[in-house]
Amino acid sequence: MTLPAVGITLGDPGGIGPEIVLKALATQDQTSQVHYIIFGTQPILEQEMQILGLPLDIQPFRKTTEGPRPLISLYEVNSPIRPTAKGSASQENGKLSFRFLEEAVEQARKGDIQALVTAPISKYSWSLAGIPWTGHTDYLNSLFPQAIMTFWSDELKVALFTHHIPLRKATERIRRTALSDFILQLHSILEKTQRQKYRYLVAGLNPHAGERGLMGSEESTEIVPAIEEAQKKGIPVKGPFPPDIVFHKALGQEDTIVIALYHDQGLIPFKLMAFDKGINITLGLPFIRTSPDHGTAFDIAGKGKANPKSMSEAIRLVCSLATA
Amino acid sequence: MTLPAVGITLGDPGGIGPEIVLKALATQDQTSQVHYIIFGTQPILEQEMQILGLPLDIQPFRKTTEGPRPLISLYEVNSPIRPTAKGSASQENGKLSFRFLEEAVEQARKGDIQALVTAPISKYSWSLAGIPWTGHTDYLNSLFPQAIMTFWSDELKVALFTHHIPLRKATERIRRTALSDFILQLHSILEKTQRQKYRYLVAGLNPHAGERGLMGSEESTEIVPAIEEAQKKGIPVKGPFPPDIVFHKALGQEDTIVIALYHDQGLIPFKLMAFDKGINITLGLPFIRTSPDHGTAFDIAGKGKANPKSMSEAIRLVCSLATA
Repeated sequence: MTLPAVGITLGDPGGIGPEIVLKALATQDQTSQVHYIIFGTQPILEQEMQILGLPLDIQPFRKTTEGPRPLISLYEVNSPIRPTAKGSASQENGKLSFRFLEEAVEQARKGDIQALVTAPISKYSWSLAGIPWTGHTDYLNSLFPQAIMTFWSDELKVALFTHHIPLRKATERIRRTALSDFILQLHSILEKTQRQKYRYLVAGLNPHAGERGLMGSEESTEIVPAIEEAQKKGIPVKGPFPPDIVFHKALGQEDTIVIALYHDQGLIPFKLMAFDKGINITLGLPFIRTSPDHGTAFDIAGKGKANPKSMSEAIRLVCSLATA
Repeated sequence: MTLPAVGITLGDPGGIGPEIVLKALATQDQTSQVHYIIFGTQPILEQEMQILGLPLDIQPFRKTTEGPRPLISLYEVNSPIRPTAKGSASQENGKLSFRFLEEAVEQARKGDIQALVTAPISKYSWSLAGIPWTGHTDYLNSLFPQAIMTFWSDELKVALFTHHIPLRKATERIRRTALSDFILQLHSILEKTQRQKYRYLVAGLNPHAGERGLMGSEESTEIVPAIEEAQKKGIPVKGPFPPDIVFHKALGQEDTIVIALYHDQGLIPFKLMAFDKGINITLGLPFIRTSPDHGTAFDIAGKGKANPKSMSEAIRLVCSLATA
C-alpha cells in the first residue's frame, strides 16, 4: 500500500504561512507514516529557511511510486510572479497564494494527495489580485457545494452554518430548509468518516434565543422547524439554545458539536477557548482538509516569532484522519 | 453619617431569585457597613426560608434614621397578587416581580436607598403580565435614557452598545453618531465614578471586522468614523477589531473594556469566561445598580441547588461602590 501523501500550501508569502509550515515540519516524526508535499516555490522556501536558520531536507516532488519517497518534497508551482515583501497584503502575494491552493486542490482531485493542510492566506491580497472568493472555504465551496466549515479543539467543536458574509446577510440566510439540510449533511459526513458518534446543539440567532418571540422570531419560524425536521430523521440534535449559554453547555464535551449560525457566534467562543491551538476542518470534500484557525499575522511576519502550534495540530490531525 | 442602604429585589418568585438572595445575605458580614432592604413580600420570604432551612433575622422596614437599623429588613411591596408555583413563567409572577422593581426604583429615586441589586426576572412572565419592557435594563432605560449595560469580571469587562433586541435590528442600529455618543457617555460616567482609568476596544460588526469592506461595510461607514470622533475628544479608544480577536486581546486586562455592538457578541465570551461569577452593572443611573449575570433558572427553582456566587458578588460590588 502506498502511504498517504499530505499536501501543504505555503499560504500568503507576506504572512507567517511559510514560517509555521517549516517550523511545524521541522518537528515532525521522521518515521512518519505520510509524505509531506509542500505547494509553493523554491525561492520562497529558501528565503524562509535562511531567515529561520532551519535547513530542512526538501526534495523536488516527483510523481513516482517507485523507491522510497522523501519525507518532505516541494511541488514547484509555476508562476512568473515574484512575492513582495513580508508584512502586508499585495496583489502578487494574493495571486501566488491562490495558485498554491489551486494546484494543491487539483492534485487532491486527481488523487495524488489524500489530504491537504492550508497555511493562512490574506483575503485582502486575494481581493487585490481580483480573486473572487473570500477565502479557502469559499473557494472550496464553489467546487464542492456541500463543504462545511468546522472548528475542532478539546474544549469546543463548532460547525458554521454561514461564514464569510456580512452579519446582516447572515441573519437573512436563516431558513428552515437550508438549516435542516445543513444538519443532515453535517451528520451524514461525520457518520461516514468518524468513529465517534456526535450530538448537535444549535445556537439561537437572537438574544436569549428570542425568548419566545420577544426578541426576534427566527427561532420559532425557522430554527425550531429545522431542528424538528432533523430530529424526525433520527439525528441527535437539540436547540435552539440561548447563544450565550450553548457554548458553556458544550465545553469539554467530546461528543458535542455546536451549530453556530454565523461566523463570530462560533469563532468568538472557539478562539477564546482554543487560541493558537484550534483546527479548522472542511468537511464534505472528496479529500481531508485542515488549517490553523488563525490568519496571516502580517504584524509579526518575517520575525521568526510565529507560534506553529495550530499548524502542527492541523498537520497532526490531518495525518491521523488520512491514515485512519 | 447615615450608612448606605442597599435595596435588593427578589425577582421572579417562580425562579431562583428569592433563594439566591437569602443564601447570599446569609453569608454577609454582620458588621457590614450597609443596610440591606429586600423588596418583596413576607409570604414569599417565609416560604423560601422554610424550603432552605435558613431562618434569617429580617425586620419589617421602617423609614427612620433613629436608633440602630437592622442588618436586613423587608420592604413589604403591596400587591393583592399571590405568586404561582415555582418552575415556570406566569402572569402573576410577572406582575409581582415588576412591582418589586418599580417600588425599589421609586425608593432609589427618592434617595431612601443608594444602591440596588436585582434578582433575575423572567422576560416571559413580564410579557404575560403585559409589561412592555424586555427586562431590567430596558425598564431603567425608559426612565434614564443614558443607562448603559455593562458586565464585569476579573477576566473580561464588556459594555453593550445594543442589548435586548433582535439581531437583525441590532445590525441596523450601528450608526456613527449613536456609537460615538455611546463611547463618550460610557467614558464620562466611568471618569466620574471610578478611580481606575479605562481604555476601550471596539469590536467590529462583521466577520474579520469586514476585512476592508469584503464582508460588510458598517466598519468603514459607521464604526471607524465613530471611533475617530471619540479619539478626537481625547478618549482612549481603538478599533474596530475582528470580533473573534478582540476578547482575547482584552482577557485579564484590568483597565480594558470591550465595547460589544450586540448582546451575544458581548455575552458569549463574557459568560464563557465568567460563568456564575460575572456581574451586570447598569451605568448612568442616579444610583448604583448591579445584578447577577444569569436568569431565573426555572429548571432548578425551589430545589435549593442554585449557586448564589454571582448574587453575592453583585451585592459585594454594589456595597463597595456605595461606600467608596
